[in-house]
Amino acid sequence: MNNDAPFAYSGLERIFHERGRLAVCTCLVANPHGMRFTELQEACALTDGNLNRHLHALAEVGIVVMQRVKGRGRPTTTVRITGDGRRRFLSYIDELESVVRDVHRRADEPSSERWATQS
Amino acid sequence: MNNDAPFAYSGLERIFHERGRLAVCTCLVANPHGMRFTELQEACALTDGNLNRHLHALAEVGIVVMQRVKGRGRPTTTVRITGDGRRRFLSYIDELESVVRDVHRRADEPSSERWATQS
Repeated sequence: MNNDAPFAYSGLERIFHERGRLAVCTCLVANPHGMRFTELQEACALTDGNLNRHLHALAEVGIVVMQRVKGRGRPTTTVRITGDGRRRFLSYIDELESVVRDVHRRADEPSSERWATQS
Repeated sequence: MNNDAPFAYSGLERIFHERGRLAVCTCLVANPHGMRFTELQEACALTDGNLNRHLHALAEVGIVVMQRVKGRGRPTTTVRITGDGRRRFLSYIDELESVVRDVHRRADEPSSERWATQS
């Protein structure tokens, strides 16, 4: 924690701190072998366009990979989280956990630190 | 949890799910009697303009109140979280906590539910 700005939470990577992308990554971490676009869409309650936009943002920074799979029927897109993506997402989740702890602690016992007492 | 879309996280109120506003609210929950604009700014490492923008967004939906206080010197602005704002923020934090739990559980034991097994 940065003592000069104890609430800055710079570890909260912005790429993950968006509700749709948080849902997508949680889902993909639970399914390391990948998911089909339509399954992901259903699990996260996202529209086609929104899921597409989020996946491209995540793919651009190497968090997910997408693959177009041709079978007997229509080609389908599968998505999986990369090793690096998984590590970064779990470290974002750790930071989230420390925010939660921080709020609980401070809400129960209002601070007597300089932020509270400075007049 | 919505079983049709288990990862939708609809309880994550968007007003709080932004890094700057998360910092501001955490800070104000720890300081229920309020803080001066400049203290808040320092604690959260936000620029004038950004803090202003976040505070106006929060005030518009009744989460914080701002007061201009005239003393001997220059007038200062103090900010505090409302009772309703505190309740809503703590309930957002509860949802965040359940996301963290969810990820830990699912990352450790990849799901064997329909999202994982559907082929």
